[in-house]
Amino acid sequence: MAPEVLDAMMPFMTSEYGNPSSIHYLGNTAAAALRNSRKQVADSLGCLPSEITFTSGGTESDNIALMGTMLSSGKKRIVTSAIEHPAVLETCAALRRYGFDVTLLGVDRNGFVDPAELDSVLGDDVCLVSVMAANNVIGTMQNISELAKVTHDHGVLFHTDAVQGYTKMDINVKRDRIDLLSLSGHKIHGPKGIGAVFVRTGVSIGPIMFGGGQESGLRSSTENVPGIVGLGKAAEVAMCTMKTDIQHMTKLRDEIIEDTLSLPGAHLNGPVENRLCNNAHFRFDGVKGTDLILALSRKGIAASTASACSAGSVEPSHVLTAIGLSLEESISALRISLSRYNTEEEVSYLDAVLPSIIRR
Amino acid sequence: MAPEVLDAMMPFMTSEYGNPSSIHYLGNTAAAALRNSRKQVADSLGCLPSEITFTSGGTESDNIALMGTMLSSGKKRIVTSAIEHPAVLETCAALRRYGFDVTLLGVDRNGFVDPAELDSVLGDDVCLVSVMAANNVIGTMQNISELAKVTHDHGVLFHTDAVQGYTKMDINVKRDRIDLLSLSGHKIHGPKGIGAVFVRTGVSIGPIMFGGGQESGLRSSTENVPGIVGLGKAAEVAMCTMKTDIQHMTKLRDEIIEDTLSLPGAHLNGPVENRLCNNAHFRFDGVKGTDLILALSRKGIAASTASACSAGSVEPSHVLTAIGLSLEESISALRISLSRYNTEEEVSYLDAVLPSIIRR
Repeated sequence: MAPEVLDAMMPFMTSEYGNPSSIHYLGNTAAAALRNSRKQVADSLGCLPSEITFTSGGTESDNIALMGTMLSSGKKRIVTSAIEHPAVLETCAALRRYGFDVTLLGVDRNGFVDPAELDSVLGDDVCLVSVMAANNVIGTMQNISELAKVTHDHGVLFHTDAVQGYTKMDINVKRDRIDLLSLSGHKIHGPKGIGAVFVRTGVSIGPIMFGGGQESGLRSSTENVPGIVGLGKAAEVAMCTMKTDIQHMTKLRDEIIEDTLSLPGAHLNGPVENRLCNNAHFRFDGVKGTDLILALSRKGIAASTASACSAGSVEPSHVLTAIGLSLEESISALRISLSRYNTEEEVSYLDAVLPSIIRR
Repeated sequence: MAPEVLDAMMPFMTSEYGNPSSIHYLGNTAAAALRNSRKQVADSLGCLPSEITFTSGGTESDNIALMGTMLSSGKKRIVTSAIEHPAVLETCAALRRYGFDVTLLGVDRNGFVDPAELDSVLGDDVCLVSVMAANNVIGTMQNISELAKVTHDHGVLFHTDAVQGYTKMDINVKRDRIDLLSLSGHKIHGPKGIGAVFVRTGVSIGPIMFGGGQESGLRSSTENVPGIVGLGKAAEVAMCTMKTDIQHMTKLRDEIIEDTLSLPGAHLNGPVENRLCNNAHFRFDGVKGTDLILALSRKGIAASTASACSAGSVEPSHVLTAIGLSLEESISALRISLSRYNTEEEVSYLDAVLPSIIRR
């Protein structure tokens, strides 16, 4: 977490413990904090505070966006891509079990969805298109505004899972004509266990969890005030430093990519252009990714193969399969992710230890 | 939050930021913390760690317990009581919209469910009975083990929403033969935005949120490690101090009840026996509860009418209606809740300021 985030949360983890629904002074302070956070997140996306609903994280945001619109719609089909996060793909699988139809769009070798293919599969029976802003494994940044335009030409709603891309790429829901968007706190140096979903005014949506009617009825549960305050502050900080942060991470990323590709048998997964500023993803001929992760861990470097969610899994990443990698290529993957806090020294250290690990 | 809870959380909000699904050193530390918390919560309930699933709070726990079992069952009916929390009642209303049948049990003047009435409504078509351990408005503690016994005699699953009762009454899921139980962090001096659901081994249940398959597939989402650590520590602390805390709160509660009932036109809502140690709930002839709350707030006292969730609502509490109060009686309600941190001095202060507020 950003130090500013923890500082902002501290009062709400100590003296300001009120429930924002209470009408007494403690409740009022908590309610005011919620209003402030909602505005911070709304400002970061270019929407109204009333269009922001706080959730427990990116997964819940995706579930609300997909289930909440599909179950409120008379239409029976959802369109998504083959490289979405499990929070989208598994929700689509559940929707299929509930009787809905799911159309999966393929992607090219670099993970891009083709707007023309999207156009060709849309029809009157489609309620929602969901395509992620940036891929969490290979860093592909889609042309979201183009995909949203194609979607709207068919009178269909457009959702983007921006958990990975939020504050690391330029997103404005009004300009990009996005109807629903998911984001998460812990991907932007905010707390774990908090997220938000943007729902454009006028979009028909219902809750997936039922109770006290908080968050205008869309997300019942006593509000996680410290988490929400942390997310709001993290969004505010990220918007202030976004330009510098992206430049910084891009520079480090490109150094890592250049140095790593000079190693024998190393290949880059994902695109060179329109690649997330903090993502470097490789495969190494004849090397097992999990062996790399464990060797790097012993050197004090925390890396991943595909995604943390699938780190314990022996299955190849569905993202790597979708871009056409063989099983052998998929399991040789190494993902290096950066943050605003990474330094040149850390990159030099990685570049110093990686070659001998690969050779061994 | 208990100071011990914040202390336990701090490392996981600063240096120990790993995702427990990651296989590197940061992930390992986070995973070990999860295991420890799961054991702490399991020990507090008398169950296995594998029977604990962490959620975003009491509402989600109730939704998983109810939706998760009903949607996995071939049976079509759920039985619950008229004084449940909205997290249960609104979930039942949603189940009704999905085609399930809901049987609502009435309660007596003190909020007790009659085991004989429960027995009479059960049948082969019932999947689940859900009755809260202790009521959040009037403090009624049900005879949970008796209700569970009656339920099991019909081969039906028994769930209890223990959000309000957990650590404030003696609950052991094995001894009490409870199949599912919901609890929340912020009711036991743990963090907001975290809860847990106990699901007995062998109970057929499915997820209501889909994604990366965390929490053995029952609750997908990157785990809220600081929140989970805080909940575990809060449970551990509460179990250590439970006996003393209950004695302390009971003493303060009884002082408040005795002093308040000496005021003209004051009545106690809820039972005298089997009443939650930290709940005092009154009504005052000819007085509006919200006026009391605002007047008390100006004196630095944070109180409630019925529940915080409904504090902003103009509707009378469904709990007060269910125990037979008139509209006028319902809106004259005042709830005083206590914690282990309340003092004799605070109770004396309340007793000093309340009479003049009531008179005015």
